[in-house]
Amino acid sequence: MATSTATSRPNPEHIFNTLVAFHETAALKTAIELDIFTAIADGANTSAALAAKIGAAERGVRILCDHLAIRGFLTKEAERYALAPDSAIFLNRHSPAYLGSIADFLTGPWSKKNFEALAEAVRKGGTASATGDNTKPNEELWINFARSMAPLTVPAAEFIAGLTGAAEGRPCKVLDIAAGHGMYGITMAKKNPNAQIVALDWPRVLEVAQENAKKLGVADHYTTKPGSAFETDLGSGYDFVLLTNIFHHFDVPACEKLMRRVHAAMKPGGKAITLEFVPNEDRVTPPIAAAFSLVMLAGTDAGDAYAFAQYEKMFANAGFKKTSLHPVPEMPQQVLVSEK
Amino acid sequence: MATSTATSRPNPEHIFNTLVAFHETAALKTAIELDIFTAIADGANTSAALAAKIGAAERGVRILCDHLAIRGFLTKEAERYALAPDSAIFLNRHSPAYLGSIADFLTGPWSKKNFEALAEAVRKGGTASATGDNTKPNEELWINFARSMAPLTVPAAEFIAGLTGAAEGRPCKVLDIAAGHGMYGITMAKKNPNAQIVALDWPRVLEVAQENAKKLGVADHYTTKPGSAFETDLGSGYDFVLLTNIFHHFDVPACEKLMRRVHAAMKPGGKAITLEFVPNEDRVTPPIAAAFSLVMLAGTDAGDAYAFAQYEKMFANAGFKKTSLHPVPEMPQQVLVSEK
Repeated sequence: MATSTATSRPNPEHIFNTLVAFHETAALKTAIELDIFTAIADGANTSAALAAKIGAAERGVRILCDHLAIRGFLTKEAERYALAPDSAIFLNRHSPAYLGSIADFLTGPWSKKNFEALAEAVRKGGTASATGDNTKPNEELWINFARSMAPLTVPAAEFIAGLTGAAEGRPCKVLDIAAGHGMYGITMAKKNPNAQIVALDWPRVLEVAQENAKKLGVADHYTTKPGSAFETDLGSGYDFVLLTNIFHHFDVPACEKLMRRVHAAMKPGGKAITLEFVPNEDRVTPPIAAAFSLVMLAGTDAGDAYAFAQYEKMFANAGFKKTSLHPVPEMPQQVLVSEK
Repeated sequence: MATSTATSRPNPEHIFNTLVAFHETAALKTAIELDIFTAIADGANTSAALAAKIGAAERGVRILCDHLAIRGFLTKEAERYALAPDSAIFLNRHSPAYLGSIADFLTGPWSKKNFEALAEAVRKGGTASATGDNTKPNEELWINFARSMAPLTVPAAEFIAGLTGAAEGRPCKVLDIAAGHGMYGITMAKKNPNAQIVALDWPRVLEVAQENAKKLGVADHYTTKPGSAFETDLGSGYDFVLLTNIFHHFDVPACEKLMRRVHAAMKPGGKAITLEFVPNEDRVTPPIAAAFSLVMLAGTDAGDAYAFAQYEKMFANAGFKKTSLHPVPEMPQQVLVSEK
C-alpha cells in the first residue's frame, strides 16, 4: 500500500506514513472487531446511531468512522456514513463474501510478535520465534489460520477446481497437503461428486477441515490423514495433489524433498497443483507476491517466496516433467501445474 | 498511504493490505534501526556487502532490502541497491536532513500501546491509557518526543520564522508554549539575535530545548519557564506566542482557557502563532490532517484535530480579533495567526 505514495520530489511524507502505517491496521481491525460495517449496513449511519447500536462512545465512533472514510472503507456525506463497495461485499457480516475473520490471523499474536522482532530476524537470517520450523506441528497457529483465512480462498479454490476439470465429474483421487481449512479440496469435491479427497494436516487442524467438509456437504467423499507431509505415508495413486501455500515455509532442500514424496504418491500423468506467491526474477515485483518474502523472514526459519524459475528447478529435480504458471484472476497468487 | 490503493472494482486487496500495513512500519523501523540506508550511502550496495557491514545475515538483509525496494525506499538494479531520493535526503545519517530518529517516537511504546487498545478507546470515547490527560506532566513521553521529532520541524519552523519577520531583526519577546525540542523558538532566535525567547514546558523536557538552544548558538537570548501552560504565570508583554502542536491534545474548553491565558500575556497587536493539523469541515480531507484525529482518540482523553472554523471560534472566544490560516509549504500542517 505504500508504493503509490512515493513522491517524485523529496518529501518525508512517505517515510512518515509508513512509520504510522500500523495505525491503519489498528483502525480497520477495530472496526471489524466492533462490527461497524455490519451496523452501517443495518441502517445505523450516523455516529450517534452507530454508538447506540454497538455500545460505544459517539466521539470514538465519529473519529473511527471519519478515519475509515479517509481510507476509502466508508463514504461520508453530510454526517452520514455508507459502506464503500469493497466494504459492502467483504466486511458486512451478512454478505456471503464476508472476510472480516482474516483480521484474526493477519493481526494475531504470532504475526505481531514476529514483526516486533524483525530486526532480530534480519540479523539472524530467520525468525526470532522458536516456532519457525514449519516441519514441526504448531497446531494453535494453524487452527487459527484455518478458522480465519478460509474466506480469502474462494477465487483461487474456484480457479483450481476449474484447472483440474472438476466440473467434468471424472472419478479421481486428490491429496490435499497441509489442507488447513480444507477449502481447496472441498471446492473440488463440491464440483465433482466422483472426486475422493484425502486431506493431510496436523490432527487438530483437520478437525476444522472436516467441519467445513460437513458444512459444505462433501463429507461422504472426504477423508483425512493426520501427520507431517514430510513423514506420514502419503498413500498412492493420486490424480491430483494440492500444495497450497506450503512451499514458502521451507528452504529449497525441504521443498524438493516434499515434492519427491508427492511425485512418488502420484499416478503417471497426474498433476501437482501448487498455489503460491510467485515474485518475478527481480524479487521486487509484483508487490504483494514479492512482499511475501518478508512475512517468511519474520515468521519462519528458512522460508521464502520463490520465483518461477526456482520452482521449475525444484520440481524438475523432484522428477516432474514440466511445470506451467497460471495467474489466479483478481488475486496476487499464481497456480503452478506440474505433470508427472 | 491507504487511500490510493482503494480499487474501483470490489476486491479484498485494500482490506488485506491495510490489515498487514503494520509490516510496513516494522520494515522501515528495522531498516532505520540497522542503519541500512547509511550503509548503502557508504557504498555497501549488495546484500552480502551490507550484511558484512551491519553484522547481519545475508538472507535477512536481502529480504529486507527487497522489501524496501518494493516500497520505493530503495532502488534495485542487478542485485545492487541504491537509495531512492527521499531516503538519500532523510534516512542517510550523514545527511543534514536526516530524520530517522522520528521512528523512536512514532513507533515507540506509548504509541504502540495506544493503538493496541484502540477498540477500548472507541468504546470509551478517549484513550484507554492512564496518561491521556495532557494537562498533567508525562515527562518520559515528552522527552522522547523532544529527542526524536526535532528534524521534522524544519519546514514549519522556517515558515513561522518567515511569517513573524524574524529576519528583519526587530527586538521582540517570544513565548514558546510546550516548547519540547524548542526548535520553533530556536529557529526564530537564530534568524533574529534581538528576539528574546522564553520556552515553557515540563522541567526535564526543557533540558532538551536548552541543549538545542546551546547547540544552535542562541543560548544567550533563550530562557526557560518550567511548568504547566494552564497554571504557571506566563509573564507578559509578548510580541509572539508560539502554540505548536498543543491544542490538539485538549477539548474545546481547555483550548479556550489556554488561549485566554495567552491573550492576557500578550502585547496589544501581538500575534499568537498556532501550528496544527487542520482538517476541512468534512473532517475527512485532507488525509494526513484529518487522520490526526485518530492519533488523539488513541492517545488522549479528549483531544482532536479541529477544523479552522472551530479554531476561529475558540480564539475569538478567548479575545482575539481575527485568525488567518496559512498552509505550510510541503507539509501537512497549517499555521494560524491570531491578532490581539
